[in-house]
Amino acid sequence: MTSTLITNIAELVTNDPEADDLLGAIPDAALVVEGSRVAWVGRAVDAPDADERLDVGGRAVLPGFVDSHSHLVFAGDRAQEFAARMAGESYAAGGIRTTVAATRAATDEQLTAHVARLVQEMRRQGTTTVEIKSGYGLTTRDEARSLAVARQFTEETTFLGAHVVPADTDPAAYVALVTGPMLEAAAPHAKWIDVFCERGAFDDDQARVILAAGRAHGLLPRLHANQLGPGPGVRLAAELGLTAVDHCTYLDDADVAALRDSGTIATLLPGVEFSTRQPYPDARALLDAGVRVAIASDCNPGSSFSSSLPLCVALAVREMRMTPAEAVHAATAMGARALGRDDIGALTPGKRADLMVLDAPSHVHLAYRPGVPLVRSVWLGGRAAV
Amino acid sequence: MTSTLITNIAELVTNDPEADDLLGAIPDAALVVEGSRVAWVGRAVDAPDADERLDVGGRAVLPGFVDSHSHLVFAGDRAQEFAARMAGESYAAGGIRTTVAATRAATDEQLTAHVARLVQEMRRQGTTTVEIKSGYGLTTRDEARSLAVARQFTEETTFLGAHVVPADTDPAAYVALVTGPMLEAAAPHAKWIDVFCERGAFDDDQARVILAAGRAHGLLPRLHANQLGPGPGVRLAAELGLTAVDHCTYLDDADVAALRDSGTIATLLPGVEFSTRQPYPDARALLDAGVRVAIASDCNPGSSFSSSLPLCVALAVREMRMTPAEAVHAATAMGARALGRDDIGALTPGKRADLMVLDAPSHVHLAYRPGVPLVRSVWLGGRAAV
Repeated sequence: MTSTLITNIAELVTNDPEADDLLGAIPDAALVVEGSRVAWVGRAVDAPDADERLDVGGRAVLPGFVDSHSHLVFAGDRAQEFAARMAGESYAAGGIRTTVAATRAATDEQLTAHVARLVQEMRRQGTTTVEIKSGYGLTTRDEARSLAVARQFTEETTFLGAHVVPADTDPAAYVALVTGPMLEAAAPHAKWIDVFCERGAFDDDQARVILAAGRAHGLLPRLHANQLGPGPGVRLAAELGLTAVDHCTYLDDADVAALRDSGTIATLLPGVEFSTRQPYPDARALLDAGVRVAIASDCNPGSSFSSSLPLCVALAVREMRMTPAEAVHAATAMGARALGRDDIGALTPGKRADLMVLDAPSHVHLAYRPGVPLVRSVWLGGRAAV
Repeated sequence: MTSTLITNIAELVTNDPEADDLLGAIPDAALVVEGSRVAWVGRAVDAPDADERLDVGGRAVLPGFVDSHSHLVFAGDRAQEFAARMAGESYAAGGIRTTVAATRAATDEQLTAHVARLVQEMRRQGTTTVEIKSGYGLTTRDEARSLAVARQFTEETTFLGAHVVPADTDPAAYVALVTGPMLEAAAPHAKWIDVFCERGAFDDDQARVILAAGRAHGLLPRLHANQLGPGPGVRLAAELGLTAVDHCTYLDDADVAALRDSGTIATLLPGVEFSTRQPYPDARALLDAGVRVAIASDCNPGSSFSSSLPLCVALAVREMRMTPAEAVHAATAMGARALGRDDIGALTPGKRADLMVLDAPSHVHLAYRPGVPLVRSVWLGGRAAV
């Protein structure tokens, strides 16, 4: 097994939970990769020998971003709807239904090529693990093939048949489909099951039923909740002890207390608020209350067609008053925990060597230099991928 | 002279002022480059023959961004000051004085290498022309060498000795220096002269004197004004008939009327408001009043260390309520006009072939896909540069 010493690292973010600082940052550092794993981290002056040696020229090295929430399996785009929304105009054409129609009409090959393009785009921005949901098929065939496509790119696949009730469909009949034949077809391709628990989508009773059915098929439950307004979703997530609940834009004190007490991670998706001009979730209040916070992109063609976790980090700092360290931690270590993963999201011995080299001397530059493509190279499982 | 046909362009933004729409956008378009210039634009089906042919695969082609306001000649960074500001903490260490000290201490070679890196970073994000100011030297020697460094990269160089009064310096004596020996040394390397006309920097009387001195040395006047609060700068710019006045964050009705009547371009710098958490200028009100608006980066280590005009376009749409078309026009055609240039900022016959190919089918995606590095390739003077 070949070992590589990566050295001349101005700042190495390890996310070591035993360190004194949140990021476990080591200045003037080095890291040894052996095979697909991190074998050693520490000060460069103390580094052991290795078969190969890479000098990164005084740059920062961070764990790759773990994007725990995306909707990459779709066809078409909704640029005109976006432009109309930004102009404050109503837009008659179909919203999510436009994407559902385009997705159903696309071939597997077209969907696969589209996901491949977006995953590559994410990698170039430092994302080394991405969760991908279905949810634009909304038929048994289209949900199952959406997940089969997603599975080619990640083991973090999520069945989201319960994204929205399709047009001209009885809600009860649709829940029966989602928890019956659709789930049967989807489960072999999925790790997670998710429900959009929001007024106009699925209520908390329906969410309970759908998540329970998924669990019975071996899927792990998660939820979209409290994105568009207050609601019962976040408290349901806490009650069920879910690993994570996503969006968390409209929370009251009881929601915050429930998250704190349950340990359920609040996954915030600031690209959505940027792209819809909605108010941002109050990350500062969540963190100050002791809630665990992750950040993800929610990359999708309707409410956030950004694949950029660097932008999400900058927004987390500018708009949600997280520190740069908290934002980076939320997009790496906490993203990993939101996916129930302990092999990624950190650069300590034994972890997967998924990392990025920044064209900058520290993680702060991700927020200090917004919009700038700072990711210089990316390693996946110990090999340079970008 | 070799000609190249660029074809299969989903959307060609020409900025042709005679077109019906602001961007002079042509769908299913082609463009012929001859030498360094655009020779022909139109529908692909009507395209003439050319020596070479490039198929851009159904992507959008736009004029390169014209970034009419940047401060790239400096050394060091102020990441910790940024992080403190975002955390709402005061930061004792020196602000701009930190950058002045680092810049003075740097060698010409270090400054040149640093500017080269930032200009290359800008190019990769679609900027084909950049204005570069001095202003971190504040001695005759350091202002002159800052401009000599900048001149290696652009003809749009600006003498900004009147950036701030250096520590322990009498303001009147400093104005005498700026309008005397410093101007003498700077003028051979500069096209423009600029003053930071703001409370705490230079007042309108000082600005008049400094701009008049610059004019007498053949420099073209411009101003920083109304960034940090209301003030006389914008009205002074209008009275003097300046080409452009930059920042324009705090304007009253009289300021807006003065800009409208004078035709002076208001150059907005939304990266500053993003990075300082200040309120954004009201671009919508300016446009609705008939004021001409440009957008630029203000890339500098203190208040906006972003070189990204794609981010500025997205912020212009999200935060300043410009349409995507207005924002793109402001960052291309209006940037060119803010520099008094009629050879760039548009892709019509005779203009310089400075252009970018987006990994997207239309200009809307620059706002619809915030943070994503969408610039696929860049041509400078008819040659692929990125």
